[in-house]
Amino acid sequence: MNDTGTWARYRAHLCTVEPLDVTLDISRMRFGDAFLARMEAPMADALEAMAALERGAIANPDEDRMVGHYWLRAPDLAPDRVTRDAIVATREAIRDFARDVHTGRRRPQRAQRFEHVLVVGIGGSALGPQLVADALGGEDDPVAMHFFDNTDPDGMERVLARLGNDLDRTLTLVVSKSGGTQETHNGMRTAQRAYRDAGLDFAAHAVAVTGADSRLDRLAQEDGWSASFPMWDWVGGRTSLFSAVGLLPAALQGVDIDALLAGAAAMDEATRAREVAANPAALLALMWHHAGDGHGTKAMVVLPYKDRLLLFSRYLQQLVMESLGKADDLQGRRVEQGLTVYGNKGSTDQHAYVQQLRDGANDFFVTFVQVLRDQAGPAVEIEPDVTTGDYLLGFLLGTREALSQNARASLTITLPAVDERSLGALIALFERAVGLYAQLIGVNAYHQPGVEAGKRAAGDVLALHRAVLAALRDAPHTPRTAADLAEAAGSPERSETVHQLLEHLAANGRVRRTPGEDPTRARYQPRSEP
Amino acid sequence: MNDTGTWARYRAHLCTVEPLDVTLDISRMRFGDAFLARMEAPMADALEAMAALERGAIANPDEDRMVGHYWLRAPDLAPDRVTRDAIVATREAIRDFARDVHTGRRRPQRAQRFEHVLVVGIGGSALGPQLVADALGGEDDPVAMHFFDNTDPDGMERVLARLGNDLDRTLTLVVSKSGGTQETHNGMRTAQRAYRDAGLDFAAHAVAVTGADSRLDRLAQEDGWSASFPMWDWVGGRTSLFSAVGLLPAALQGVDIDALLAGAAAMDEATRAREVAANPAALLALMWHHAGDGHGTKAMVVLPYKDRLLLFSRYLQQLVMESLGKADDLQGRRVEQGLTVYGNKGSTDQHAYVQQLRDGANDFFVTFVQVLRDQAGPAVEIEPDVTTGDYLLGFLLGTREALSQNARASLTITLPAVDERSLGALIALFERAVGLYAQLIGVNAYHQPGVEAGKRAAGDVLALHRAVLAALRDAPHTPRTAADLAEAAGSPERSETVHQLLEHLAANGRVRRTPGEDPTRARYQPRSEP
Repeated sequence: MNDTGTWARYRAHLCTVEPLDVTLDISRMRFGDAFLARMEAPMADALEAMAALERGAIANPDEDRMVGHYWLRAPDLAPDRVTRDAIVATREAIRDFARDVHTGRRRPQRAQRFEHVLVVGIGGSALGPQLVADALGGEDDPVAMHFFDNTDPDGMERVLARLGNDLDRTLTLVVSKSGGTQETHNGMRTAQRAYRDAGLDFAAHAVAVTGADSRLDRLAQEDGWSASFPMWDWVGGRTSLFSAVGLLPAALQGVDIDALLAGAAAMDEATRAREVAANPAALLALMWHHAGDGHGTKAMVVLPYKDRLLLFSRYLQQLVMESLGKADDLQGRRVEQGLTVYGNKGSTDQHAYVQQLRDGANDFFVTFVQVLRDQAGPAVEIEPDVTTGDYLLGFLLGTREALSQNARASLTITLPAVDERSLGALIALFERAVGLYAQLIGVNAYHQPGVEAGKRAAGDVLALHRAVLAALRDAPHTPRTAADLAEAAGSPERSETVHQLLEHLAANGRVRRTPGEDPTRARYQPRSEP
Repeated sequence: MNDTGTWARYRAHLCTVEPLDVTLDISRMRFGDAFLARMEAPMADALEAMAALERGAIANPDEDRMVGHYWLRAPDLAPDRVTRDAIVATREAIRDFARDVHTGRRRPQRAQRFEHVLVVGIGGSALGPQLVADALGGEDDPVAMHFFDNTDPDGMERVLARLGNDLDRTLTLVVSKSGGTQETHNGMRTAQRAYRDAGLDFAAHAVAVTGADSRLDRLAQEDGWSASFPMWDWVGGRTSLFSAVGLLPAALQGVDIDALLAGAAAMDEATRAREVAANPAALLALMWHHAGDGHGTKAMVVLPYKDRLLLFSRYLQQLVMESLGKADDLQGRRVEQGLTVYGNKGSTDQHAYVQQLRDGANDFFVTFVQVLRDQAGPAVEIEPDVTTGDYLLGFLLGTREALSQNARASLTITLPAVDERSLGALIALFERAVGLYAQLIGVNAYHQPGVEAGKRAAGDVLALHRAVLAALRDAPHTPRTAADLAEAAGSPERSETVHQLLEHLAANGRVRRTPGEDPTRARYQPRSEP
């Protein structure tokens, strides 16, 4: 296709969401009119299914749940008054709480004002707040944001070291929908100990965001935490950004949550359109289908040309891959579906893996994210008429062109700026595209059975860990091998896991290790013999 | 395979690098003995080719260059005395310079001591320093590290805002091997202006790391920068961590660069072994070959269970994908090779895309990185005998098991700790594995022709940008469409690109835009009419 052809194609397919000034350009995806015609009926069905979901149909049959994240930005759509009122009241409570924190009306035990917020959460309870913090944060924010998003003791130590003496002006949000996520529980316990070691009352600095009557909810009630905000079973973790999970940290950080919600609501409105050419989410879903032949055979490389959107690909990894990566379809047939997402930012990544994108295996399509507004301050001109931001755009357009020349597909989403409204819209766009694409390929986008399998397996490992420590104590004077101890722990078939557990205990000074002829024949005994 | 079988297989294949206490476990990769036998001769050839490369053979035929990053940690291997002495002298100069910065002997213009380092670089000139800073940094470091790693004006503004009034105690390193990388040049210019605006002499706070007689080198000489350190043409950007590119920021940050080098040297030693079973890099390369059938058909998901190694996957994306993602093999045949890398950290990612890994398309293999030592401070016990670190290991072993159960392959690298020695070893391990794998598949791992194509295309866009601005000025009173202006700029076939450029100029207040019937029919004219 010559360049004149690309202009015609660009004009023919450009999708503009007027009230948001957001555009989607699919002209560099390599589809033809026949594809669009063939997909017309399935997409009409998918749009109808999404409308039913928005009306409160059970869209997550495995867990017998409604899927209501769209109501969060349009409470009047909620299927009943109670749900509607809960959404509105929670938003109001978040605004009030944030205002009281900012004015110092709600203050820490020993300081005048909260200056830091520590979010303890993982997955859906961390990625959204991290994205918002990085995309919209700045030096003038009323509080600085910090995260425990793992059960890595060293990682948490590091965050606490950064907080240092400011722990007494740190508000800790513990975020877990189920209230039982182990990593979050461990993070909470680590935070609790840090406050206690600093002579501070944890409860006076703690806020829960969790489901009603969860383990965490009860704990927060009993211990008299500073506040609690609800999570609902009709909001999934990976679509919880517009619930208290995302709105509370955002409001505390000084983000205009009404603009964030308005951006998402406007995108929701646009992505309800039954006319596919005017519906950017429908177009995205169709392009994913075209690129990967409905089986995710091509990865989606996400390349925002904007430092503030660095975490967007990580956010999408969860939203897209956890929603679409499923073993079975809704009819119970084995499909092993998915859509791989990776990427960081441009033009930085051009100096990394873009070499492979252009010249290597053609197993991907790129999603460029362009941001029109360059910066808040005055531009730096590198030469007359040419700013640093002009170069950033030049690299985006150049890479898009270099990929096209080698028959590599790409699409481009253009935002007016990185602000609340555009970020809300961007997230809502992908939420809807994921929902529509899941309909097209017939999978349940709202459960995550594979995650549960990993948790169960981890539980088994922890049980074995306890059994091994008990077995060690039973014969404290006898150095034994991993195989011996697996036997003694009643799991002779799990020698390998026992070996891993013992090496870890030894490295942390918790058991004594005598080297063997090879690492698998080392012998272990309790460290302090009685 | 039952669990007893896995223990036997684990013991049979475990590769231990004794002096480093590093192990590689390939037992959960699904290869058989026949594969190892079949690959024996090709791997012997690859090992011989690597030995020749280390002796100074031209290993990058396209650019007629030697490939010498292994000499950086074993200068006596360098093919001539001049090279050897340059390596040793540079290391010594780095140590001296860092010491002088730390003691305040080398001090900023208006303050007592440098407290911040701003690294201006991209790709190979940023990823290594960023990885080291994040993996080994802490609150007690002598300087805090900051990065300009893009030409995003807003991103740079944000870094400068973070530095705030501390710019007068900030040392800026400008890192570019060629001295001509545009993003880095733009970053330098942005930094220059910030110092100037603060009434500071940039040269007194600036250090160059660049090739002899490059544009950057000459500028640093002419302007009398604080110091210059060399880059050599036999070190590629993506393997430059052990040159001044990585060692200077590391030394300034307080990292023990001798331990970093010693860790890499010890791994180099181990990965020269001709006995494949004892050579972890050879085993890695073989496993990549097995997983992706020698064509990279499966992505490598990198999952370190350690917050400090979060950036390791991004580092590997560059090292692996830029080295292996090639259109042609060494014989000039079209191969479109590559090996996709993505990942962040465990257990965090278990709450994101691990759902797809377990249940979705089996198009990947996982590289787990386990770290035995949990933390520096006292452990937090969640229940008797069970710490937060025990859970971290439990999640790793549980996920590894859950993947195995579903026939998903994985391998595990175990490090004793995240420290200089282990990090140096880990990087050296992958450098060698990439080199060996490139030999196996017959591609040049040391050039990046696709990156150049993107740069050329970006240059064309910038030229068009200048032409459009000139065309606008030629008829300042006539609002014209993108198509009109493309014509006026002498590129009627590039209307689409002109449209993108004009929308960007309009959004930043640099041209006046009058809406049209659709966005592609808007009209533009200069903003300030004369």
